Amino acid sequence: MPDPVLALDLGGTKIRGALVHGEGGPHAGPRLEGLAEAPTPAADGPEAILGAVAALAERIRAGAGVSAVGLSSAGVIDSAAGRVTHATSSLAGWAGTDVRTPLAERFGVPVSVLGDVHAHGIGEARFGVGRRHASLLLVAVGTGIGGCHVIEGRAVLGAHGAGGHVGHVPVPEAEGVPCPCGRTGHLEGLASGPGIVQLARRLGADASVQEGRALAAAAGAGPGPAREAYRIAGLATGRMIGGLLNVLDPAAVALAGGVSEVGGPWREALDHGIAQETMDVVSRVPVLSATAGGHAALLGAAARALDDLPA
Amino acid sequence: MPDPVLALDLGGTKIRGALVHGEGGPHAGPRLEGLAEAPTPAADGPEAILGAVAALAERIRAGAGVSAVGLSSAGVIDSAAGRVTHATSSLAGWAGTDVRTPLAERFGVPVSVLGDVHAHGIGEARFGVGRRHASLLLVAVGTGIGGCHVIEGRAVLGAHGAGGHVGHVPVPEAEGVPCPCGRTGHLEGLASGPGIVQLARRLGADASVQEGRALAAAAGAGPGPAREAYRIAGLATGRMIGGLLNVLDPAAVALAGGVSEVGGPWREALDHGIAQETMDVVSRVPVLSATAGGHAALLGAAARALDDLPA
Repeated sequence: MPDPVLALDLGGTKIRGALVHGEGGPHAGPRLEGLAEAPTPAADGPEAILGAVAALAERIRAGAGVSAVGLSSAGVIDSAAGRVTHATSSLAGWAGTDVRTPLAERFGVPVSVLGDVHAHGIGEARFGVGRRHASLLLVAVGTGIGGCHVIEGRAVLGAHGAGGHVGHVPVPEAEGVPCPCGRTGHLEGLASGPGIVQLARRLGADASVQEGRALAAAAGAGPGPAREAYRIAGLATGRMIGGLLNVLDPAAVALAGGVSEVGGPWREALDHGIAQETMDVVSRVPVLSATAGGHAALLGAAARALDDLPA
Repeated sequence: MPDPVLALDLGGTKIRGALVHGEGGPHAGPRLEGLAEAPTPAADGPEAILGAVAALAERIRAGAGVSAVGLSSAGVIDSAAGRVTHATSSLAGWAGTDVRTPLAERFGVPVSVLGDVHAHGIGEARFGVGRRHASLLLVAVGTGIGGCHVIEGRAVLGAHGAGGHVGHVPVPEAEGVPCPCGRTGHLEGLASGPGIVQLARRLGADASVQEGRALAAAAGAGPGPAREAYRIAGLATGRMIGGLLNVLDPAAVALAGGVSEVGGPWREALDHGIAQETMDVVSRVPVLSATAGGHAALLGAAARALDDLPA
């Protein structure tokens, strides 16, 4: 049996990792072993972050051999160069960091690096709800809105590793609303989790509604600003997805992220928005809830590392 | 030397074709021989249309051997099945037609079928302005607005062959404007050639402005409804492109089609719209005029037919 892949998932608050054993045939997914996590020293700079990643990795492999390392990382990643091209301020000094070389030198095996949403997309497409579809558009709605278009198991990474920023398209409902990327009028500013909270406040929600859980509870309690905010956000998100169905024509859509789990008026409005925009030829594309779970990015990073190994 | 590919381009008013000889090395494009055209018997049904295609093809090959047939066709094409899945009323009864089998039986060689915008995209990506880029988003603005995302020479066709319908995304400027696809609020209804004429009329243009040439002349003559219509359409088209740069992250964009050749205020507004929407990481993607010319679809169909040949 070949050595497992060492899979790592670096986020703004924690690092997770595991050994991933083969795909196990068409009906069995890969098997995770030694799952562990550690806090991300986000404020301490790239050397400290990479040191923490390496320390966790050593702990997980515990001296055993690995065939490759697959790293899913926050930020925009140039996978060909193994380098971070852009990052938000949540990881200090992260932009520009060469993440591949230090890991390759330490472990002596090929290292593949992917942006986290791309790793998540590959995991969901190959081992989650995309398993039975030739292509998948993952749409993740949480603190931000991201996505990944996966065609025959390969993510469309883009020329700069920036492919899949589905939250950064202009939507009519968001005209004038600031977006975290610095532009205005993008979906993410309106319809991410924090965007919906702000929208509800603009619609007159009580000052006690400051985050998603309280907002979801208020929406569940009956008509009012909270429910209306979910409706508007769901509609705008659905219109974006409908437009992208016309452009990308994926075999299926997977919804992930905290907002997508609220369901109810958000999901009803989302379906309405999709139906409003889709051309007949793509109007029956299934829109499904993601199923690959919290380890999707680890599975995707491992799968990509195996793809990248010389045949 | 291997036999050439017989390339055919079936449009709503005419059919064109040529023999295409090899790609001729990295610095020489393929060579077209025996270029010919015939009118499309668009109202006479699929059998008559396929008969006209075959007759033109026989005339072009003049008894010589061909290695494959590459057909670019109007309509939405399921390339895997070689079948038309959807078509507008301009080709009577075209939807549902199996176009591959009759051509394969007659010519005795493999037949590849592509939608015309996909063939155009491949031609532009491989032999036009995309030649020096790893990926390309073609945006064609004319009677309609279509596009094609080409990654490493392969077009993203989509699960139903519908990939690239970039005119069918919601844009704020088009809210409430009917789209030829039957929806409202899509870019195409506002910013295609006919859409811009109608927009100029809504803005108060003279009744003599009934088509693109007159409109372009009026826009060139000075400020007024014609120029304003080009400005609004260019801005909306640019915003769409900017949003798609965030989603697709292509290495370059190519502009094609009659409206794109008007330039002036349309192009200025387009560049402004792109800049308004793009995230920093994709803000320097070059936006270029297409250069593959009127035979791009023939070249793309031939290239795809060669790709599809067994190795």
